[in-house]
Amino acid sequence: MRIVCFYSDYGYQDDFAGTCRAVMKRLEPTVEIIDVTHGLEPQDVRGAAFVMRNTLPYMPDGAVHLAIVDPGVGGPRRAVALRSAGDRLFVGPDNGLLILACAADGGVAEAYVLSKGEHWLEPVSATFHGRDIFAPVAARLAAGLPLHAVGDAIDPAGLTQLDIPQPKKTKRGLKATAVLVDRYGNIALNLNAEQLEEAELGERIEIVCAGERYLAQVARTFASVRASDIVVLVDSYGQVAVAVNAGSAEDVLNIEAGNTLELRRTTRA
Amino acid sequence: MRIVCFYSDYGYQDDFAGTCRAVMKRLEPTVEIIDVTHGLEPQDVRGAAFVMRNTLPYMPDGAVHLAIVDPGVGGPRRAVALRSAGDRLFVGPDNGLLILACAADGGVAEAYVLSKGEHWLEPVSATFHGRDIFAPVAARLAAGLPLHAVGDAIDPAGLTQLDIPQPKKTKRGLKATAVLVDRYGNIALNLNAEQLEEAELGERIEIVCAGERYLAQVARTFASVRASDIVVLVDSYGQVAVAVNAGSAEDVLNIEAGNTLELRRTTRA
Amino acid sequence: MRIVCFYSDYGYQDDFAGTCRAVMKRLEPTVEIIDVTHGLEPQDVRGAAFVMRNTLPYMPDGAVHLAIVDPGVGGPRRAVALRSAGDRLFVGPDNGLLILACAADGGVAEAYVLSKGEHWLEPVSATFHGRDIFAPVAARLAAGLPLHAVGDAIDPAGLTQLDIPQPKKTKRGLKATAVLVDRYGNIALNLNAEQLEEAELGERIEIVCAGERYLAQVARTFASVRASDIVVLVDSYGQVAVAVNAGSAEDVLNIEAGNTLELRRTTRA
Repeated sequence: MRIVCFYSDYGYQDDFAGTCRAVMKRLEPTVEIIDVTHGLEPQDVRGAAFVMRNTLPYMPDGAVHLAIVDPGVGGPRRAVALRSAGDRLFVGPDNGLLILACAADGGVAEAYVLSKGEHWLEPVSATFHGRDIFAPVAARLAAGLPLHAVGDAIDPAGLTQLDIPQPKKTKRGLKATAVLVDRYGNIALNLNAEQLEEAELGERIEIVCAGERYLAQVARTFASVRASDIVVLVDSYGQVAVAVNAGSAEDVLNIEAGNTLELRRTTRA
Repeated sequence: MRIVCFYSDYGYQDDFAGTCRAVMKRLEPTVEIIDVTHGLEPQDVRGAAFVMRNTLPYMPDGAVHLAIVDPGVGGPRRAVALRSAGDRLFVGPDNGLLILACAADGGVAEAYVLSKGEHWLEPVSATFHGRDIFAPVAARLAAGLPLHAVGDAIDPAGLTQLDIPQPKKTKRGLKATAVLVDRYGNIALNLNAEQLEEAELGERIEIVCAGERYLAQVARTFASVRASDIVVLVDSYGQVAVAVNAGSAEDVLNIEAGNTLELRRTTRA
Repeated sequence: MRIVCFYSDYGYQDDFAGTCRAVMKRLEPTVEIIDVTHGLEPQDVRGAAFVMRNTLPYMPDGAVHLAIVDPGVGGPRRAVALRSAGDRLFVGPDNGLLILACAADGGVAEAYVLSKGEHWLEPVSATFHGRDIFAPVAARLAAGLPLHAVGDAIDPAGLTQLDIPQPKKTKRGLKATAVLVDRYGNIALNLNAEQLEEAELGERIEIVCAGERYLAQVARTFASVRASDIVVLVDSYGQVAVAVNAGSAEDVLNIEAGNTLELRRTTRA
């Protein structure tokens, strides 16, 4: 018996995540569900892909990872089930959502398009494939349905890829993109510890964001700087992040996911 | 052993839903709880009744449906347990909350007022009957307590009914009421697919809402219209809904649950 | 087998609570988790301590109480596991968070600092001890690890205490502090039923808050006053609370946790 680790942007206001849970328990009463989060930014496939990649190593081995951020529901995007080289299963839309997590788990070993309607709820709605297709297939896989039974094998090379912005060197430092903003207002960048170190910015740096310039300190933890000061640290998932001790970097820098900012050497001694 | 499907407007900020869960597990350790949603609009009994009716067919058979939206707590409203003709159990306040779901499941077969205090937590507070009465009774029913043991049988005809606004024909179309607004800003109306079809509005229509007029398209899915365009579709629960592709109809139309709007034939060719 | 009752300020937007859940299930598949709430006010240790104290009697006996509101993560604050005289276990930061609940359960019988790294996830991050230290230790305790195995025994008298504001008598009544504001806008005060009764304010009182004066009624439930009127009642956790029938006291009084207000005899007959 496998566990379903469930990620979505369904939020908590509506019944959507709960109804998917009920569908899984109705079809396969012994399946166990871990709600990782349903608070993913609505329709933000890229941010969700980062969350899945980050959290994957903490999920139980051999789990089925059900992920739904699906702005193209009802359109031509495919529904897929994947097996990673690390032997984890993934179910969701083929829009790039699953691709970073699979890559971090050794790459996609097998890919299938969900085409066997006998595993779905009928009739399938035009707008809620989470309930009608993805959750039923995830539950059945967790209960032992062989992966190849979900539909037709496809070439993993043909899966939809994500457009991931890469950090760029600038004259005085690095330009990076905000990929995730959390509830505390911490901003995770598409930048890892090595890339930051290589840039040799020093301990006291400048952040330039939307034309404004801020002083910040590179340190190990929030409490390394004074309250209200900006700190640049490597977060718990290995991402370089901008934070404010006892405050919100999101508010101070007035930034959102997708925005770019520059980390650079300060001109002051 | 039955499952408890738990609906409430307790939200996620406080301990209310979690404390009810703990109470159920404390009294009946083997009971299984599905949190359908705790994000129901505070005190909106009518909206919650629609959510229960919509989601009921997806819940496990024979479950106990615990529902708490209870603006009259501590006042004279009764606490009840119902059995539908479809053999589902319902526990909650007698304020109309359970009535649409029961009706959709064949009607109320048996009704009891919760009057046997030995199944409750003592002392019963004046303001948190979810914790002290409803959750304990639901847990015991799920664990096998016979329905008639919860209190005195009452005539189902005497249960509190809901005032459900009906769509009205107008000169050029239909006037309908918004009953649910979801996290994406989609607006579900008290109107079903048949009623929309009978009105023969055509594919391109006008929506009149709070004195403003909008152009919209009747279609099958969000992606059937261009981004930012308004689409009228039959949603995944069979309700006619107003949506904006890659946007929020709630924001565009500036509407909330309870407001009325008119769908009508366009005067333009 | 024990249950983990999980409290945090991680919110629902991010994966934090879900990842902790996954870590517990990964390490100890048979452990059962009750999410009491993850909506605790971010970084508000005092408010969270009240929530834990309030809800404790409703949690299953012998549970492990995992609580994370941890503004000092990565700094010098200690991580601890406690056993109360009532034989409940507590895991969390030593910042006062656990202290009111333990006191209400007979006091701290045993205290240990978490120092045995073999029970943690390695490497330990600087900013997410919930995932790397607290959740793993809680899961292992729930699965039967003896408490003394988590680290070195410490003197309970040396645990960090909370600064709890006490109500003060004034010429015409009482000055009290708002400690919790719930989703409905009800305001719980650091004041219990006895203290209110002793003050002999009568049934019709005045509330003075931020220089403004409001008329209010002391009653048993929301519905005891007219819609939009202010009611002072003893809430379901035994705290004196200010509420507005069919409205929000938070909005009407424009108050937040930590603010003080005065309840006093009215000068009008």
